[in-house]
Amino acid sequence: MRKEAIFAKALLAHQQSKGKVAITSKLPVESMEDLAIAYTPGVAEPCREIEKNPDAVYDVTSKGNMVAVVTDGSAVLGLGDIGPDAALPVMEGKAVLFKRFANVDAFPICIRSQDPEEIVRTTALITPAFGGINLEDISAPRCFEIERRLKEVCDIPVFHDDQHGTAVIVLAGLINSFKLVKKNIEDVKIVMSGAGAAGIAICRFLLSAGAKNVILCDRSGAIYNGRPEHMNWAKDEIAKETNPNKEMGNLAEVLKGADVFLGISAPGVVTTEMVKTMAKDPILFAMANPTPEIYPDEAQAGGAAVVATGRSDFPNQINNCLGFPGIFRGTLDVRASTINEEMKLAASEAIASLISDEELTAERIIPEPLDSRVVPSVAKAVAEAARRTGVARI
Amino acid sequence: MRKEAIFAKALLAHQQSKGKVAITSKLPVESMEDLAIAYTPGVAEPCREIEKNPDAVYDVTSKGNMVAVVTDGSAVLGLGDIGPDAALPVMEGKAVLFKRFANVDAFPICIRSQDPEEIVRTTALITPAFGGINLEDISAPRCFEIERRLKEVCDIPVFHDDQHGTAVIVLAGLINSFKLVKKNIEDVKIVMSGAGAAGIAICRFLLSAGAKNVILCDRSGAIYNGRPEHMNWAKDEIAKETNPNKEMGNLAEVLKGADVFLGISAPGVVTTEMVKTMAKDPILFAMANPTPEIYPDEAQAGGAAVVATGRSDFPNQINNCLGFPGIFRGTLDVRASTINEEMKLAASEAIASLISDEELTAERIIPEPLDSRVVPSVAKAVAEAARRTGVARI
Repeated sequence: MRKEAIFAKALLAHQQSKGKVAITSKLPVESMEDLAIAYTPGVAEPCREIEKNPDAVYDVTSKGNMVAVVTDGSAVLGLGDIGPDAALPVMEGKAVLFKRFANVDAFPICIRSQDPEEIVRTTALITPAFGGINLEDISAPRCFEIERRLKEVCDIPVFHDDQHGTAVIVLAGLINSFKLVKKNIEDVKIVMSGAGAAGIAICRFLLSAGAKNVILCDRSGAIYNGRPEHMNWAKDEIAKETNPNKEMGNLAEVLKGADVFLGISAPGVVTTEMVKTMAKDPILFAMANPTPEIYPDEAQAGGAAVVATGRSDFPNQINNCLGFPGIFRGTLDVRASTINEEMKLAASEAIASLISDEELTAERIIPEPLDSRVVPSVAKAVAEAARRTGVARI
Repeated sequence: MRKEAIFAKALLAHQQSKGKVAITSKLPVESMEDLAIAYTPGVAEPCREIEKNPDAVYDVTSKGNMVAVVTDGSAVLGLGDIGPDAALPVMEGKAVLFKRFANVDAFPICIRSQDPEEIVRTTALITPAFGGINLEDISAPRCFEIERRLKEVCDIPVFHDDQHGTAVIVLAGLINSFKLVKKNIEDVKIVMSGAGAAGIAICRFLLSAGAKNVILCDRSGAIYNGRPEHMNWAKDEIAKETNPNKEMGNLAEVLKGADVFLGISAPGVVTTEMVKTMAKDPILFAMANPTPEIYPDEAQAGGAAVVATGRSDFPNQINNCLGFPGIFRGTLDVRASTINEEMKLAASEAIASLISDEELTAERIIPEPLDSRVVPSVAKAVAEAARRTGVARI
């Protein structure tokens, strides 16, 4: 379907249904006895149970399966800073994906403030009803600070999907890409375009996974320790851990000899000519949406061995639906107090492992978003990693 | 069923279902095309629509049918200040009643603070996803201040059900009781026991409805303008508008000659002997739960013409389910900016009018909570009153 047709159809569907999120009752409320059990006087008993034993809130309420989808609307899709009201359709969408993919109940919390401290306070204050927090579409570098502070003050897991969800899928795709081209993450040169929330998080996660030479580029070119201009505290921090050879210059210059290009930036910043300057069998994930950094055919013309995009109409879609549903499912299943690096790495490996060696081709490095094996596999791996690292509470 | 049996059954039911609130999707999410409509890229179009026209949020999201059930857990049922976590089962219960009775989607917001300013800020900041706010189980006199401030800062209706919902049902019951005993609200002496949220709100509402002589009592007896002890700002305010003859003394003393007793206080504070001192054909609403201020048989032994309680096992149950579902249904249906006195009076009249003159007896002054005529009647009356008073926005 053409883009305009999808937009028109989406608007109509949203108008007809008046949004996407509805509430249902898990208990019947038909008779007076039902009422006496779901509400007064019977409801007093689960209340007293929680008062006696705070952990009982996970047994007698929906908390343990309920995730807050929190945004301030500052960086929504490709639309930018459209605010918390206009962001609501996306948050409702995220909530229905949680439900559809992982049977996680999720509810949109759109905060009418862009002050990080106020976002942290508001979110922390409403946690009694929630078992987890999924931050969404909050602009960088504010999102890093908000996530860090929330993790400090909340006793439930906090996860910024634009950062960590994306990073998990990218690593899953890279694991299989490296298998195909027979390279190791420790040895490759990875050049990234885009130093926003996703870019910085992917970068950090690749370092966690063993990458030694990652160069992050923004509009001013390669980021290196001590770069004098267009820095912020998040870039300063990441600069210390990346670009070990202190390469300088624009994207085209640092891309020379690179094994991997990861784009989470802007349409068309990579050309066929640039791909030709990369190392042998280059891997390109061009994830700008809807127009990628380079189209698959252009990348292949330059010699690309593997190409992935964010789009469903090309092979190898890097789609967050492969990550967050299973990650939260596994996290909630064992009541993990946090979502740590080991859990995210386990998620990447679980996703990658669903493509068997026989199936693995340059056009199939990652499962389809609707592959029903994904969520259970990811959830299991995440739950096991939580147990292994001692953050599971049941 | 005995109370202990209900408690045990309720606990088990809550454990088995793991709470009561679940989320569902109003749009299908099965195919890749469904995904493209409910989420990216299609969802961008409803977002842009809201960005262009803020009111479109009511057309393309669930906001227009979504109510926040907000509490700080400071005055939960008869349990008292059990906090926001232990209050969650009640808020989930309220949410499922909203759904069951009026097809209103409602979600529990339990706030981990008892600072009124913080409760107001937190609630106001998360309003983008909500079309209305139902305050619940917040202690007096803080609840008055929280409600007043929220009404100032929010552009959606704010309603404290413990106050106004209860007041609406009490007035409905009184309208029909007065018909039975052939008295007018303007002429009667009404004595109330309990000066908490419900007591003060009922009192104010009766004054709105034309009552001239209401005496509010607390543990220190009748409240009058200038009483030196056990006052707070809310009692000071109400004292100026009530007890015109400045009657002093304890409940037993001021109850002498009263036409109506309304109890929202404590078990057993009224005796048969006290009822005997009331005016002819006294009306008693003894709403303390589960043990009323006086049992129906004791009141009748003293000559009571009409008795109501909060319990389902006696006639004339004053049950909030008769009010809030229809009130919010009507309010949301016309996108009213507030829930004003006229809308609440219309609700009381609608509830009362469901008992025809032929049906009306001392044992049937008010419909049953599960009477399916209640919500549509109340919703219609409330919506009409909103239109009449100019607060309807569609």
